[in-house]
Amino acid sequence: MEKIYSRVYLVLPEIKQLLLERKKDELKEVFEDYEPVEVAQVLKDFSLKDKVYLFSLWGIDFAADVFEKLDEEEQIELLGAIDDARKGKLLNELAPDERVDLFEELSPEMVKRFLSIMTKEEAQEVRELLAYPSTSAGGRMTTEFVSVREDMNVDEALKILRKTARDIEMVYYIYVLDRKDKLVGVLSLKELITAEPEDKISDLMHINPIALPVDMDQEDVAHRIANYDFLSLPVVDKNRKMQGIITVDDVIDIIREENTEDMYKFGAAGEHSEGYVKVGSLTIAKNRLTWLTVLAVAGFFSGIIMQRFEFALEGVVALAFYIPVLMDTAGNAGTQAAMTVVRGLAIGEVKLTDIWKVVKKEVLIGGLLGIPLGGLGFLRAIMLQRSSLLGISVAFSMLITIMAATSLGSILPLLCRKIKLDPAVVSGPLITTILDIFSLFVYFSVSIFFLSL
Amino acid sequence: MEKIYSRVYLVLPEIKQLLLERKKDELKEVFEDYEPVEVAQVLKDFSLKDKVYLFSLWGIDFAADVFEKLDEEEQIELLGAIDDARKGKLLNELAPDERVDLFEELSPEMVKRFLSIMTKEEAQEVRELLAYPSTSAGGRMTTEFVSVREDMNVDEALKILRKTARDIEMVYYIYVLDRKDKLVGVLSLKELITAEPEDKISDLMHINPIALPVDMDQEDVAHRIANYDFLSLPVVDKNRKMQGIITVDDVIDIIREENTEDMYKFGAAGEHSEGYVKVGSLTIAKNRLTWLTVLAVAGFFSGIIMQRFEFALEGVVALAFYIPVLMDTAGNAGTQAAMTVVRGLAIGEVKLTDIWKVVKKEVLIGGLLGIPLGGLGFLRAIMLQRSSLLGISVAFSMLITIMAATSLGSILPLLCRKIKLDPAVVSGPLITTILDIFSLFVYFSVSIFFLSL
Repeated sequence: MEKIYSRVYLVLPEIKQLLLERKKDELKEVFEDYEPVEVAQVLKDFSLKDKVYLFSLWGIDFAADVFEKLDEEEQIELLGAIDDARKGKLLNELAPDERVDLFEELSPEMVKRFLSIMTKEEAQEVRELLAYPSTSAGGRMTTEFVSVREDMNVDEALKILRKTARDIEMVYYIYVLDRKDKLVGVLSLKELITAEPEDKISDLMHINPIALPVDMDQEDVAHRIANYDFLSLPVVDKNRKMQGIITVDDVIDIIREENTEDMYKFGAAGEHSEGYVKVGSLTIAKNRLTWLTVLAVAGFFSGIIMQRFEFALEGVVALAFYIPVLMDTAGNAGTQAAMTVVRGLAIGEVKLTDIWKVVKKEVLIGGLLGIPLGGLGFLRAIMLQRSSLLGISVAFSMLITIMAATSLGSILPLLCRKIKLDPAVVSGPLITTILDIFSLFVYFSVSIFFLSL
Repeated sequence: MEKIYSRVYLVLPEIKQLLLERKKDELKEVFEDYEPVEVAQVLKDFSLKDKVYLFSLWGIDFAADVFEKLDEEEQIELLGAIDDARKGKLLNELAPDERVDLFEELSPEMVKRFLSIMTKEEAQEVRELLAYPSTSAGGRMTTEFVSVREDMNVDEALKILRKTARDIEMVYYIYVLDRKDKLVGVLSLKELITAEPEDKISDLMHINPIALPVDMDQEDVAHRIANYDFLSLPVVDKNRKMQGIITVDDVIDIIREENTEDMYKFGAAGEHSEGYVKVGSLTIAKNRLTWLTVLAVAGFFSGIIMQRFEFALEGVVALAFYIPVLMDTAGNAGTQAAMTVVRGLAIGEVKLTDIWKVVKKEVLIGGLLGIPLGGLGFLRAIMLQRSSLLGISVAFSMLITIMAATSLGSILPLLCRKIKLDPAVVSGPLITTILDIFSLFVYFSVSIFFLSL
């Protein structure tokens, strides 16, 4: 978990003192003025014994709220240390979506043991949620939501809401279901409280509401909720039977996860393991090694090309001096273009149908970049090697490779999207390695021509 | 704007027909079953004349909701085409935060003209919001929120809420202010409707609520709201006088913007101009050229180093064959490390205080990566150049440069954070260019030693 600002630190000395003296009543109350996430933050520095003590003191509601904000490792450690009666109560009280995230981390034996101490109903719910892939709408949703029937009036709906609100986190949308639990409408709590008590729900509700299928991927889910500015969206099965809701705070988590994943891919850094500081060096090295090896093997082709043109290098050793800057510039220009298109695709700014527009644009941009940068290479060759023919070779190669770089950098992510691969696999390092091989080939060919080697 | 799924497309043929026949009443109603964002999406393909017609038909509430979802260019075009009376009404009706975003794009003359047709009160509000930097809490907040006094009871508060809810978007938190408009408490609508009518607000409210200062940067704002899982947070001035609120949908926008910015920086692609497909090639080229030029000039240093070691290259031309793979691998390993740390800092997984832990870890990771990759280089030199001394030089250089790459890649972003620079300026291309110079130097030095050149 990210380290956050917690107001509890301001009263920490008093709390430590209360803990020393085991002052039950004060310890029960002192935390309740703060947000659960603030309490969870401070608990990190407490001993396991103190944590177990506090969790046994607190009301089960508050305990569950704080528990949900702990890291999964902390949750598992704590569950191992508290007695079964309390553990069962705590597990029953957790929000279904947070609870299933925890169960996904447990060993099969622990899952079985934990389910056995929960109520039948809650255990069944865990089993049902565990059946969905963890990155689908079903795996992300919570099953706690407010639902009413369409033949009710506002007053009846408000009564239901008042009765169930305590156990439900997101009460600000009320879903209207028919007798078969099919979703037929939605209205907001705002609309409900500004309506007259005898108004019919069926007159007030928005019919045919937007709903997410249970098997929708979480990235699409996040896009939908973010674009519609809803606080939550309903999740339905293929018969439009209501299964749960996904709330906006899940969306924020999903967007962050997906962005991190994209950046790791773009840096060719392999899989993201949560908690960089905590994960072992060997695991991180393993994650990174795959791409490095693939790219190094590909990089040896650059050597093979140079070997083929050995005669040219022996003729004019100064040719070699421009290889690094040529390779770097091509790689950089390709990285820029690829990054722009990968990000554009991710946030929906670029569409697959734009493919030719994008490539034409990038060829033009490549030209606009290649002319000044080629000019720079020319100047350097004139000044340092006093050879205008070498300068022309460098400038010309620079222009060609930069144009190739921007077009390749833009076209590869689009092709990936086309064949349903994640565009973010077109990483900076991958583009760079491909372009290195290409630029060496161009450079030597151009130089042989202009320098008559 | 991102292209979104809109249910309005399903009835588009009917709508087009209604437009042809100018059927007022039907056109007024047909859109109201859909979300404003869905309507805005479909309007993109309509003629300006049709858009003006529709906006004059619709109720001002619905018109304002749809208007807010248009791109800024569409908004400005539309405002230019509708008459002043309607324009004034529309501008008065817009959400304050959306409206100020629009005003920030207008020329000073247009700002003046638009303010002159608005009500005095709304115009004053625009002026106040425009005074805040657009990326601060003040520039992002809306001034519409529900507030009550602490000596009220639940029934009185609900009455206020019912009266004001129509004009306020976010009604799910009720802020409690004292006589000087200082923020003293908060309660949720959920708590309000589950309480008894005669309960005192002062007994129910959470005292001393978390509030954001008006001048807080939007990135910190987004972190706070995301971590606390609130739907909105209050914004206060330095006297804790309540100024407005920031809602969770703003947070999603901020997170997306900040991520895009980070990725552009990491790809060394310069500034992100919204709408890649729309922005001109010259603008994009200009954004990218700065970094490319800086890096190309730095890249010439690689050439200078090679020139210094010309004698070695003339002695063993085969040395040159390993330069690309060595440079690439160092750049890639550095990019991976930098990306991991930049992202870790952005999401709060890595802290500045972890600096030595991180660097020690990356040196170790560098060793773990350098040994197999160096081995690969050694094998290749044995197989292709049949020279074990060259192989040893390659392997040894590989190990040193990869270890340098991972440590430099991790330490540079941390140093940037330390001196309050954005860590994301340590881009893949920048790391690659620095490492190229370093790896050439190491490679030649090592080779001269082992090959006795």
